[in-house]
Amino acid sequence: MTELTMPLAAVEDLCLKTLMAAGATAGNARSVARSTMLAERDGIRSHGLLYVPIYAEHVRCGKVDGKAMPVVDRPRPGAVTVDAATGFAHPAIDHGWPSFIGAARANGVAAMTIYNSYNCGVLGHHAERIAEEGLLGLCMTHAPASIAPPGGRAPVIGTNPFALGVPDGAGGAAIVLDQSASVIAKSEILLRSKEGRRIEPGWAIDALGQPTLDAADALKGSMLPAGGHKGFGIGLLVELLASCLSGAVLSKDASPFSGTAGGPPKTGQCFIAFDPAAFSTGFSQQIAALVDAIAGQEGARLPGAGRRRARGATEAHGIRVDSALIERINSSNR
Amino acid sequence: MTELTMPLAAVEDLCLKTLMAAGATAGNARSVARSTMLAERDGIRSHGLLYVPIYAEHVRCGKVDGKAMPVVDRPRPGAVTVDAATGFAHPAIDHGWPSFIGAARANGVAAMTIYNSYNCGVLGHHAERIAEEGLLGLCMTHAPASIAPPGGRAPVIGTNPFALGVPDGAGGAAIVLDQSASVIAKSEILLRSKEGRRIEPGWAIDALGQPTLDAADALKGSMLPAGGHKGFGIGLLVELLASCLSGAVLSKDASPFSGTAGGPPKTGQCFIAFDPAAFSTGFSQQIAALVDAIAGQEGARLPGAGRRRARGATEAHGIRVDSALIERINSSNR
Repeated sequence: MTELTMPLAAVEDLCLKTLMAAGATAGNARSVARSTMLAERDGIRSHGLLYVPIYAEHVRCGKVDGKAMPVVDRPRPGAVTVDAATGFAHPAIDHGWPSFIGAARANGVAAMTIYNSYNCGVLGHHAERIAEEGLLGLCMTHAPASIAPPGGRAPVIGTNPFALGVPDGAGGAAIVLDQSASVIAKSEILLRSKEGRRIEPGWAIDALGQPTLDAADALKGSMLPAGGHKGFGIGLLVELLASCLSGAVLSKDASPFSGTAGGPPKTGQCFIAFDPAAFSTGFSQQIAALVDAIAGQEGARLPGAGRRRARGATEAHGIRVDSALIERINSSNR
Repeated sequence: MTELTMPLAAVEDLCLKTLMAAGATAGNARSVARSTMLAERDGIRSHGLLYVPIYAEHVRCGKVDGKAMPVVDRPRPGAVTVDAATGFAHPAIDHGWPSFIGAARANGVAAMTIYNSYNCGVLGHHAERIAEEGLLGLCMTHAPASIAPPGGRAPVIGTNPFALGVPDGAGGAAIVLDQSASVIAKSEILLRSKEGRRIEPGWAIDALGQPTLDAADALKGSMLPAGGHKGFGIGLLVELLASCLSGAVLSKDASPFSGTAGGPPKTGQCFIAFDPAAFSTGFSQQIAALVDAIAGQEGARLPGAGRRRARGATEAHGIRVDSALIERINSSNR
């Protein structure tokens, strides 16, 4: 594998050009390109340039409507809803954003739900953006079903992550937490399946509900939730807010985020923002004391520390990327 | 041990009488007595009559102000705050309730935070009460620190449970989820310590951060979160909402919920209610389909099923309770 160095701005440009070549509007492509750049910036390769050919393919096959115009509504003072119109999630989120943030400031708390949507990239970046507004953000997104309820064998919920963005009182985020409900990312099982490698004990069960170390059998069965029934409970919380409250399809009925089959997944997101100033004084001091109690311990680290470290490096030096991937993306644009 | 049968109404009466004898006002005692009855009804003994002598002791020693008058404020249309004034959590919650529920209906979402508070009994009952209002409820409460961050050894967060109440569209709850961040309840480790029994692997670490099977060492060390760093992440989410947003003390600075030392714990709660009708149509049908996809699977069961089963039995036949406990409670009232 030969690698090349690419500044972050070039990552964003390449994604923008590629999505527009596939048929997305400039506005829609811009929202997704920014998200792709942020993923590479923080070292989250699975949601970075690797995903660009999939985005382009999904625009071309109609799994995503690249020309969708999201429709924002605000049925109650604290409730913002966005119909993503089977387009990308990112422009839908961007369209609802001013309403959402304004509602949170005015009401103390607001929720924005998005339906007829698609995967929204790195969830933590949306939570961090809320924190940068000086608000406490709790974000949830669901995904095609891959986790069975404890004792069962048919997947009902997706890896259903939640993310939390905590403002630092100075325009940034003191903490960004971003975690899925499963023991391991689905992408890791897909990778091992492709490479013919075994998976680790405790990661998955097969279609009969039995523990398996075979990656292909795991993909036909169910991933296991982190912390057993408690991990399933977290995924269920996310399902109830991101799917049921949003009016999106249930995870069990969503078409896959990979491949071209099944039409638009029509999944959803639910973002909640709290204005700390509406509830208490001294929030920032408490956050500082909490951060210190964790990060100040030998051996412990704050959630999101790895991403922060990656960010420092890529902002200074750009990313290192497989030149074959760049060639593959470029060739699809011709 | 000799047991006696007690109807649920008698459980409530006994708690009411005991708390008033200890010095609580009738109004404050009534809120706590109802919570105690609900715990016994659902088979959650740790928060039932067993706790009544502790409540009474805490009123007597000043850890709880039995005569506290909670102060409700509504600084923004969707933000309700309650100063529990170092009294019981339950009357504070009851005082804020009409404002909170009204705010959720009017705004689509509302949050109620409680500070200068105390433990709030079975968290799931508050979430269920929100569901009975036809709203989706997410409740969080924190507790004196007992869980260290992964890699560290000093506890920073408590067992910090969250609970979810999902309305069934007919005045009841379709799902009630109630789970703590730890692998095992602290009460189980306390019990084993008292009985001189070993704990199970994976439950706790000692004060040096090493795995331990010794219950007494575990109590001096840290409980382990369910699902490793992901369980800690959930507890951190609860800490940020129930402590930091509420303006309560941090878990690491709270006095213990047991014993008479340390004065009022001044912990907090955060309850969030969403009006599904503000966000989407078809919420109830989606909930019904989700419930069916879980409970309809052989071997799987819906969260909260055990409590529901216990409820059916105690409502019909009352509870069976250790007569020595009843004698102990009665004697403290003389």
